[in-house]
Amino acid sequence: MTAVWTDKKKFETWLGVEYAVVKAMAERGLVPDNVPALLYEANGKMDPKRIAFFEEETKHDVIAFLRHLEELVGTEAMRYVHMGLTSSDVCDTAFAMQLRSANMIVHTSALQLDQVIHTQAIKYKDLRMIGRTHGMHAEPTTLGLVFASWLAELGRNIERLRIAADDLAFGKLSGAVGNYGNIDPEIERLALEMLDLNVEPCATQVVPRDRHAAYFNVLSLIASTIERMALQVRHWQRSEVDEVREPFSLGQKGSSAMPHKRNPILSENLCGLSRVMRGYASMAQEDIALWHERDISHSSVERIIAPDATILLDFMLSRALYLGKLDINEHKIDQNLKLSRTNTASSNIFLALMQKGHSREKAYEIAQEWRTVPEVVLQFLSDEEYNKCLDFERHLAHVDTIIDRV
Amino acid sequence: MTAVWTDKKKFETWLGVEYAVVKAMAERGLVPDNVPALLYEANGKMDPKRIAFFEEETKHDVIAFLRHLEELVGTEAMRYVHMGLTSSDVCDTAFAMQLRSANMIVHTSALQLDQVIHTQAIKYKDLRMIGRTHGMHAEPTTLGLVFASWLAELGRNIERLRIAADDLAFGKLSGAVGNYGNIDPEIERLALEMLDLNVEPCATQVVPRDRHAAYFNVLSLIASTIERMALQVRHWQRSEVDEVREPFSLGQKGSSAMPHKRNPILSENLCGLSRVMRGYASMAQEDIALWHERDISHSSVERIIAPDATILLDFMLSRALYLGKLDINEHKIDQNLKLSRTNTASSNIFLALMQKGHSREKAYEIAQEWRTVPEVVLQFLSDEEYNKCLDFERHLAHVDTIIDRV
Amino acid sequence: MTAVWTDKKKFETWLGVEYAVVKAMAERGLVPDNVPALLYEANGKMDPKRIAFFEEETKHDVIAFLRHLEELVGTEAMRYVHMGLTSSDVCDTAFAMQLRSANMIVHTSALQLDQVIHTQAIKYKDLRMIGRTHGMHAEPTTLGLVFASWLAELGRNIERLRIAADDLAFGKLSGAVGNYGNIDPEIERLALEMLDLNVEPCATQVVPRDRHAAYFNVLSLIASTIERMALQVRHWQRSEVDEVREPFSLGQKGSSAMPHKRNPILSENLCGLSRVMRGYASMAQEDIALWHERDISHSSVERIIAPDATILLDFMLSRALYLGKLDINEHKIDQNLKLSRTNTASSNIFLALMQKGHSREKAYEIAQEWRTVPEVVLQFLSDEEYNKCLDFERHLAHVDTIIDRV
Amino acid sequence: MTAVWTDKKKFETWLGVEYAVVKAMAERGLVPDNVPALLYEANGKMDPKRIAFFEEETKHDVIAFLRHLEELVGTEAMRYVHMGLTSSDVCDTAFAMQLRSANMIVHTSALQLDQVIHTQAIKYKDLRMIGRTHGMHAEPTTLGLVFASWLAELGRNIERLRIAADDLAFGKLSGAVGNYGNIDPEIERLALEMLDLNVEPCATQVVPRDRHAAYFNVLSLIASTIERMALQVRHWQRSEVDEVREPFSLGQKGSSAMPHKRNPILSENLCGLSRVMRGYASMAQEDIALWHERDISHSSVERIIAPDATILLDFMLSRALYLGKLDINEHKIDQNLKLSRTNTASSNIFLALMQKGHSREKAYEIAQEWRTVPEVVLQFLSDEEYNKCLDFERHLAHVDTIIDRV
Repeated sequence: MTAVWTDKKKFETWLGVEYAVVKAMAERGLVPDNVPALLYEANGKMDPKRIAFFEEETKHDVIAFLRHLEELVGTEAMRYVHMGLTSSDVCDTAFAMQLRSANMIVHTSALQLDQVIHTQAIKYKDLRMIGRTHGMHAEPTTLGLVFASWLAELGRNIERLRIAADDLAFGKLSGAVGNYGNIDPEIERLALEMLDLNVEPCATQVVPRDRHAAYFNVLSLIASTIERMALQVRHWQRSEVDEVREPFSLGQKGSSAMPHKRNPILSENLCGLSRVMRGYASMAQEDIALWHERDISHSSVERIIAPDATILLDFMLSRALYLGKLDINEHKIDQNLKLSRTNTASSNIFLALMQKGHSREKAYEIAQEWRTVPEVVLQFLSDEEYNKCLDFERHLAHVDTIIDRV
Repeated sequence: MTAVWTDKKKFETWLGVEYAVVKAMAERGLVPDNVPALLYEANGKMDPKRIAFFEEETKHDVIAFLRHLEELVGTEAMRYVHMGLTSSDVCDTAFAMQLRSANMIVHTSALQLDQVIHTQAIKYKDLRMIGRTHGMHAEPTTLGLVFASWLAELGRNIERLRIAADDLAFGKLSGAVGNYGNIDPEIERLALEMLDLNVEPCATQVVPRDRHAAYFNVLSLIASTIERMALQVRHWQRSEVDEVREPFSLGQKGSSAMPHKRNPILSENLCGLSRVMRGYASMAQEDIALWHERDISHSSVERIIAPDATILLDFMLSRALYLGKLDINEHKIDQNLKLSRTNTASSNIFLALMQKGHSREKAYEIAQEWRTVPEVVLQFLSDEEYNKCLDFERHLAHVDTIIDRV
Repeated sequence: MTAVWTDKKKFETWLGVEYAVVKAMAERGLVPDNVPALLYEANGKMDPKRIAFFEEETKHDVIAFLRHLEELVGTEAMRYVHMGLTSSDVCDTAFAMQLRSANMIVHTSALQLDQVIHTQAIKYKDLRMIGRTHGMHAEPTTLGLVFASWLAELGRNIERLRIAADDLAFGKLSGAVGNYGNIDPEIERLALEMLDLNVEPCATQVVPRDRHAAYFNVLSLIASTIERMALQVRHWQRSEVDEVREPFSLGQKGSSAMPHKRNPILSENLCGLSRVMRGYASMAQEDIALWHERDISHSSVERIIAPDATILLDFMLSRALYLGKLDINEHKIDQNLKLSRTNTASSNIFLALMQKGHSREKAYEIAQEWRTVPEVVLQFLSDEEYNKCLDFERHLAHVDTIIDRV
Repeated sequence: MTAVWTDKKKFETWLGVEYAVVKAMAERGLVPDNVPALLYEANGKMDPKRIAFFEEETKHDVIAFLRHLEELVGTEAMRYVHMGLTSSDVCDTAFAMQLRSANMIVHTSALQLDQVIHTQAIKYKDLRMIGRTHGMHAEPTTLGLVFASWLAELGRNIERLRIAADDLAFGKLSGAVGNYGNIDPEIERLALEMLDLNVEPCATQVVPRDRHAAYFNVLSLIASTIERMALQVRHWQRSEVDEVREPFSLGQKGSSAMPHKRNPILSENLCGLSRVMRGYASMAQEDIALWHERDISHSSVERIIAPDATILLDFMLSRALYLGKLDINEHKIDQNLKLSRTNTASSNIFLALMQKGHSREKAYEIAQEWRTVPEVVLQFLSDEEYNKCLDFERHLAHVDTIIDRV
């Protein structure tokens, strides 16, 4: 992923854009036939250091890039390069390409995680465990359903990512204020087609930044979904709960002072990084309202968050693959479930009492009392009815239905 | 819009959910036939004050609601109400309905704004004005293209709103931990169908909050697009620019100290409110990672931002309709454009010089020098060539193409 | 607290500012002696509805206010009111007064919470419980130390609040662009002295907004500290931990489906509200960079967050007083501590082994192994030495030192 | 600044902490006298690559560091190193030292900027320019007053930085859960004294994170103040305003397409970076509410923002020094002021009319009308009175008073 965001890669992508434009122009006879080939050959020869050297003087990266390109292709050819373009035509179009490359990696990592969780959902679909709301024992569920819930959420996010990435696949080669002052829309169409990008229907000097803000929002949503999973693992691993643990490798140490410790550090790490991703997304939102046909305030933001947010999210997605290697403590899961067995029957008892004709209020009272004085309920329910209340099979009757839906 | 978020409306929507469930159960013969009708009649009779009174004791809003409902439909019927449901089944399903109602209003307001800007884009498509980048005169454009750019962005946001709202149209009636412990999936399907909602494929106790976070993000994106427009008006109205002004009504005052003032206060107001919307969106993001099968921390956030963010955005969209009544100062627009005429010809001159065989470097230098010593360029260009550079018609040649695309 | 933020209160505060100015001017002989008295009498007679009526026409709240004031004090007196002032002189100075009032309430609530936690820290300073890091049992600590840690943090925040509130106690009566164009600095000095405010040393049209941003940051810090406490309670109350519970009143219900539930809803509520407070703070940060001598974009933000953030934080502080009524389950605290007794001795064993001459690496390995095979350690330590390792008194030896520091 | 945040520097700082502890212990006779010297000699010999190698296996950075240290000082000495400490004792104490180093650089840069702006405030204190509110001409002010306003705000922020940095100068050497389980408070006191840090009065496993959140908030406030200045320059440089320009170096280019352009890119860059700083601050706020005696979720956040935020702010402060080299266009400043001369007299006329006995309402109306029909006012004011209204000297009468206050 870091390779996407090197200076070298950036300049090569710029060159790719300039190449597509002269190629399109050559097809239309506006540029000598040999010019595209000259640019093509320059690829791989560019030296970021030379460009940095020229930028020192010009304080303008694209002009520095063009100067260096002149060194490679000659002055004569350069008369036809960047013709009718403004810097943002090159930068923004190339930025779309770099974001596409970054997104492909993110997307692939997301699909890998999806696969891992999918496998876990199937594998553990029938492993009963106590469900918890407010951190308190509620009613039984299965471990597979937890994974299934994550899977469904991740799936929605992957679809959001697809939409947001499609919305980013737009270039613009329409000049200084986006109205084709010195270039023909047809050249833009041809060149962007070569680059497999759509034409921005109404650019200013730049591609509008709502596209980018929407994309960074989705990256942050994915991070929050990872946080949701990681947070769950942290809860499961608590000493008292001890149902699921992070993998712990041979030789790994948990604490420099307490040799007994085995901490959910991967999960804690991911929870922290989700905060970082939220912050990155917030930065992108302020880039939408630029002045007139553009100001360049968004640029410094994007130089930071485009690499940082995509690299970080990809790291998070890759790290989250540990969810496929969790250490499942079935014994403790069962113990905790049993601990709660009578407790969590309260909703069943409540319903059974109402079905026998008690009012809602009365039934609720008995069920509350039953918690401390179990005998009380036997005044109202037969042994058979009572035992049926303690049977949790019904909580698991529809697991397959849910799993199939997901 | 405020009507959507009253307590009365909330309780009526809850009743609507309970009604749909007993109706579905009655269809399946699980509930006496008269129960749905009793609930139906209770609608309109509910008294939020009674519910508040019961909540004082129970500290639980849904139980308080059920107690009040018992006053209206009788103890016998209540044995069949809320059967197998958990509070969140009612609350979350109803919340989806309230958000849908709120969103319909927001959506309608967004379409109205879209219409207003559409009209302006057509009306002013050929009104030439100087385009500006970095706040500096760049090349000519037209006022209509500015509107068109806004229109395209607003259109993208309306599409995003549609997607996010569709993603919110999910209810759940699957019990305490979402696995149908005491209710049949078929009842959920039937009841949600009546309410025109989709079945949440894998709920916990609640509908997962990525759906809501994504929605509030879109609300914030729309606000940022409004900010972009409003910011533009503020720039246009500046004393020195004075190209476009907000409408100023008869009797309106600009300042308590300076009677000459006429300030772009609507636009400034909208820019501020966009900050508020960004803040609301940030709150929703932290609600995704709940504990286990749910914790209730998201609830206090949503009680604030669900009404506040939808009401505020609707206010912003409605207020932004002033963009259809802008006071366009065509005289000043023309003056500013002329002021810049020779100035902004520099890109044309630059290109003309290269076309005549000068190197990129040399051409750039001449064009830079020409700004202060106009004569210099005549050494290199004929009068005719020079005059062609001062002609801006080409900047406007593709306006219709762009407008048509949008 | 809501009384601070009513329209009525706002207009009365505005009147208070206008009064102070005419009083100062009367002292200097610039205004007839009877004018201050006329304004003084107008207090309590103002009708927000009349002002709203005038604002409908003027679209300017201060001018509407002045018109209504003219109804109350007469046209002649009004010639001397608001003389040399700009609207912001009145609004910003009054805003400082309203924020001061709001802050006094917040501050008082913070001190109450401080007192409650202080009492708990003393009361439970010696109640041993297992300390946890990463959610895992670590080494023993005491419940009082937990309270002490909160107390220290709250104390720091109260000090921050004091500083930030002092930084807000600045008014300005220096005219349209802050340079006393039509008013004498001496009048400002006298008037602000009456209002017990400092003179803004270098105002623009307004008091600079870094003061407000800093203040809202502190409100958010306090909210996060409350969240820290509430989060702890949620963890303590978990079914498996069950060491500390929120108070649960007679008649309170935990769930509409599960009569056995008793959930930490106050704490969950506070955790959610902390997200809201962070969002409010983020809004205020964007208000610092105003245009030139001011733009009014900050105003719409402040109309929302000044009441919403102070009211909400005061609510949070008041709600957090439940921390003084926690239901401490000493039995379970002791059980959990014992559960971990041998476990958490590992650091002691580790140290003991090194003290006996084993290398760090070797000692760590033995201590790790000891966890599963306790006997192993007896090869290296005498019974006495081993038992000393299981004694946790040393962990509690410095509790009083820490409590005294706090 | 980057030197502060290298791995090498981090490990050296950790060593510094371990050294201080053994030194303190040696003073108390708990450690052989030669141990401190051995550690002292290890400084400068540490190899981050070896530590990385060990971390690969242990997944624990401090244990990896200790293993490498053992290579340098020998197994025997290591029995006395890190004795009674937990990793956070070393990391958090060292983190305070690194933040202190970083802050010294930030602080120095802030003082340099302060000096530069101070000089400008004095230099231009009498240069009259039109003041603007809402982007509209208001009343005259001076350029020096603008600088003075920035200076006052920056001064407040520097004071906030001092307070927040003082609040960060706390270390802790109190063991796994902060209660001195295996170390004496006296050792902590001595060691921290050597490191010139205060003792955290009530630590958990870590120093509480409200200290850090408060600090990052201040960094963001400073960034917003820089944004305020930079935004002003962008407005001043606008083509139509053209009063002040950023320095433009020889050979610098403004645009690849438009050779005439000279854009305020430094200022735009700073405005963007301020958004980034706000995002970093928001991340730190979520680190306050850790679980129990600590969880490690804050760590991943801090690894990113501690270097990124301090480096970025220092870059911003250094870049902002261009404010001392602004290109002041006195001619255009004067022109713009004159353009507005009659216009901005409206407040004077308004006051003069009231002083002559007209009602507030009537005076306001005349002053509004006068804008378009200047003659109207001569019906009510003598020529001398009218001319006095056009005289702006009074707006400048108190400039020195304000400058002196700042």
